Amino acid sequence: MADVKISIIGAGSATFSLALVKDLCLTPNLSGSTVSFMDVDEERLEAVYTLCKRYAEETKTKLKLEKTTDRKKSLQDADFVINTALVVGYSGYRAGWNIGFKHGYRFGGSYHIMHDEGFWINFYQFRLFESIVNDILDICPDAWYLKLANPVLAATTYLGRKYRKLKFIGLCHGYLGVFHLASVLGLSSEKLEFKVPGVNHFVWLTDFRCNDEDSFPVLNEWIEKKSQKFFEKCGFSSDVGPKAIDLYRRFSVFPIGDTCTPGGGSWPWWYHTDDETEKKWKEDPKSWWKWVLEPSKEDAVSKLIKAVHDPSVKVTSIYPPQKSRESIINIVESLTCDIPRVYQVNVMNTENLVPGVPLDFEVEVPSLINKKGFKGEKTKGLPKAVTSYLLRDRVATVEVELEAYETGSKKRLLDLILMDPWTRSEEQAKSLLEDILALPQHTEMREHYL
Amino acid sequence: MADVKISIIGAGSATFSLALVKDLCLTPNLSGSTVSFMDVDEERLEAVYTLCKRYAEETKTKLKLEKTTDRKKSLQDADFVINTALVVGYSGYRAGWNIGFKHGYRFGGSYHIMHDEGFWINFYQFRLFESIVNDILDICPDAWYLKLANPVLAATTYLGRKYRKLKFIGLCHGYLGVFHLASVLGLSSEKLEFKVPGVNHFVWLTDFRCNDEDSFPVLNEWIEKKSQKFFEKCGFSSDVGPKAIDLYRRFSVFPIGDTCTPGGGSWPWWYHTDDETEKKWKEDPKSWWKWVLEPSKEDAVSKLIKAVHDPSVKVTSIYPPQKSRESIINIVESLTCDIPRVYQVNVMNTENLVPGVPLDFEVEVPSLINKKGFKGEKTKGLPKAVTSYLLRDRVATVEVELEAYETGSKKRLLDLILMDPWTRSEEQAKSLLEDILALPQHTEMREHYL
Repeated sequence: MADVKISIIGAGSATFSLALVKDLCLTPNLSGSTVSFMDVDEERLEAVYTLCKRYAEETKTKLKLEKTTDRKKSLQDADFVINTALVVGYSGYRAGWNIGFKHGYRFGGSYHIMHDEGFWINFYQFRLFESIVNDILDICPDAWYLKLANPVLAATTYLGRKYRKLKFIGLCHGYLGVFHLASVLGLSSEKLEFKVPGVNHFVWLTDFRCNDEDSFPVLNEWIEKKSQKFFEKCGFSSDVGPKAIDLYRRFSVFPIGDTCTPGGGSWPWWYHTDDETEKKWKEDPKSWWKWVLEPSKEDAVSKLIKAVHDPSVKVTSIYPPQKSRESIINIVESLTCDIPRVYQVNVMNTENLVPGVPLDFEVEVPSLINKKGFKGEKTKGLPKAVTSYLLRDRVATVEVELEAYETGSKKRLLDLILMDPWTRSEEQAKSLLEDILALPQHTEMREHYL
Repeated sequence: MADVKISIIGAGSATFSLALVKDLCLTPNLSGSTVSFMDVDEERLEAVYTLCKRYAEETKTKLKLEKTTDRKKSLQDADFVINTALVVGYSGYRAGWNIGFKHGYRFGGSYHIMHDEGFWINFYQFRLFESIVNDILDICPDAWYLKLANPVLAATTYLGRKYRKLKFIGLCHGYLGVFHLASVLGLSSEKLEFKVPGVNHFVWLTDFRCNDEDSFPVLNEWIEKKSQKFFEKCGFSSDVGPKAIDLYRRFSVFPIGDTCTPGGGSWPWWYHTDDETEKKWKEDPKSWWKWVLEPSKEDAVSKLIKAVHDPSVKVTSIYPPQKSRESIINIVESLTCDIPRVYQVNVMNTENLVPGVPLDFEVEVPSLINKKGFKGEKTKGLPKAVTSYLLRDRVATVEVELEAYETGSKKRLLDLILMDPWTRSEEQAKSLLEDILALPQHTEMREHYL
């Protein structure tokens, strides 16, 4: 039984923290561990802590739970640092997007504006990540930094280049979409083998087997015979919807999870040129983002926090003790207890794991993890055309964004906007940039980008 | 005195062939050489041959001149194969461009449609190059293939990847624009030192010295004090015009030659969004291409050919015997007579000569050439943002074009069109593609792209 300390930075996300504690409770190897919840929002921290504590008691775990608003204290003696924090909050998304709408921008292929990785969101994320990393290297330099917060693509690249001594893995659960695809096809998730390489939010199914048999023929038959019926019932912007199938038809590899859904920026633009085209493809990114665009006063999180104040509710009844598919606690177990397993992770492409992606850029690949750390798998990469889009719509833009951030250059931010599929003129790009920078909450960003 | 055989494939271009013969006449080391003019157009071949013969006689050279319409015969015993041929001719450009105009495409950043490297032009060029290369490897495998014909970017990459045994250099005189810049600034071209790395038609001045002094301050002062006056007089779409200066302001490296002019596709799009914007930047790609769009019946070439029939005209009076700045004959001399000199060439990036460009892609770099061949110079590369645009607008598109060509895939051609800055919808892209393929002259292409 291992005895590690896990520090959760941004623990105020109740759903995330509870899911993590739940998985920890269900991992006997880690049952003696300490979890340190850290958040700047005292009220949320208290609520999450109480909830998790009750959960731990209900499940009779030996986990030690701590809470603090002091990050440095939380990092003391930490073996793992997990980070999910979102600095600007959903209102921050909204403020930028509304400016985007005003200037003619749409959801759909717009990765750095009409998406939750907009440059004015990422700016604060980069700053947070860097300050966490600096604290880790200072206080607990041997700890693993497991970063779940967005942007995974840009920040894994940024941190991977800059902090070479950091023990660091970027995680995103988007690849789990492969299980959705399997279930739609009626394939057993237990017997599934797959490879979904790429870069974060741009991962494609290149190998797909079930019960030792190639599953692509099953997919092809399903498309031919059953997809139309499925499309009638599937929701808008489904990761197995008409758009995903059309992309598979084009490229012979299947876009997984957020690769073509609003969660990954609804790549590419041509399915989203106007409402009519979106309707034809059963796409509706605006509805997908409704929880951000038109938030209800009583959302899931606030409901959960309410439960804190009602001791009659068993937390285990809301979160039944079944292990989630999130890999994070399993990764902690593999690293701690030397249990080798393969995970989908975001790491630097130094060893050319996805050919065609620059070596100093991040990739999302299967990776063996054990006590020694991770060893990314060398994949065969993606079809040429997909790699070309990857260079064009992911690498080029992220490079420009990072250059803008590192040099504090407003000119480079303008380049980023000029690369957006909805930018039709330099004037439009300039107006968007000025209007976003002019938002009262962006004092810090205005001072940075000169 | 060396005795080499130079085979000129596509010798019917009178201006090119004459310039080449002129430079040969002025290179004593090569005066015993044989030039074999080869063209499929007998009339033009005859005219060029007669003209060059008269030139040779007027200058009392010892050059041996031959002509043939049989390529294989011309390649027999060749030491150098020079290729400038354009298969579709200017009427081929026009036919495609007119379809482009119809579908809302404009000159300006459109590299594979509204440019002389349109996919329906390149298709025939690729075929020609491959058949020449196969003949070379068969008939004169030790010969150097010096390719001047467009597309240099796509074809150097394509041939460089596929024919590794071929002794091959791609050439483009676009970089000579640096001498235009120098002359505008009043700098002596004799004392100029410069580096203009990049990929073909996308090369940027990173080092600029005259008389052992940094010349960027001279450029900066000229911009501040004299550029406005120059802009009043310079022609439209000048490579030292307002657009070039604005790009220099953005990126701190100067776009050289065709990098931002219509000759290189008028990159990037945002200076060309409408006529008014173009006017503001003193850009007019349509006028630049007037010789193609509205050809006069009596152009420079036909005038020159007329001279053939008028023995009273001295050819040397039209083409005075002064060495041109074209590097081709000097390169032949360096390779033949082991005279080491540095040239601007297009070669594969295998040795990472321009960091950030994929290793299996071409680059345009300074290169030492002597009897052993060429040794490309490892440059410091381009600023991050410029490299990002290069990946986005040059690498990604060329990769898709080559994939389309190699696999005969119409789907991939559609991807290429979807990457064009003027494509606003998939329908528009499809219409353009279908209309171009439907042109009567494109039977061969229709059969290739399925």
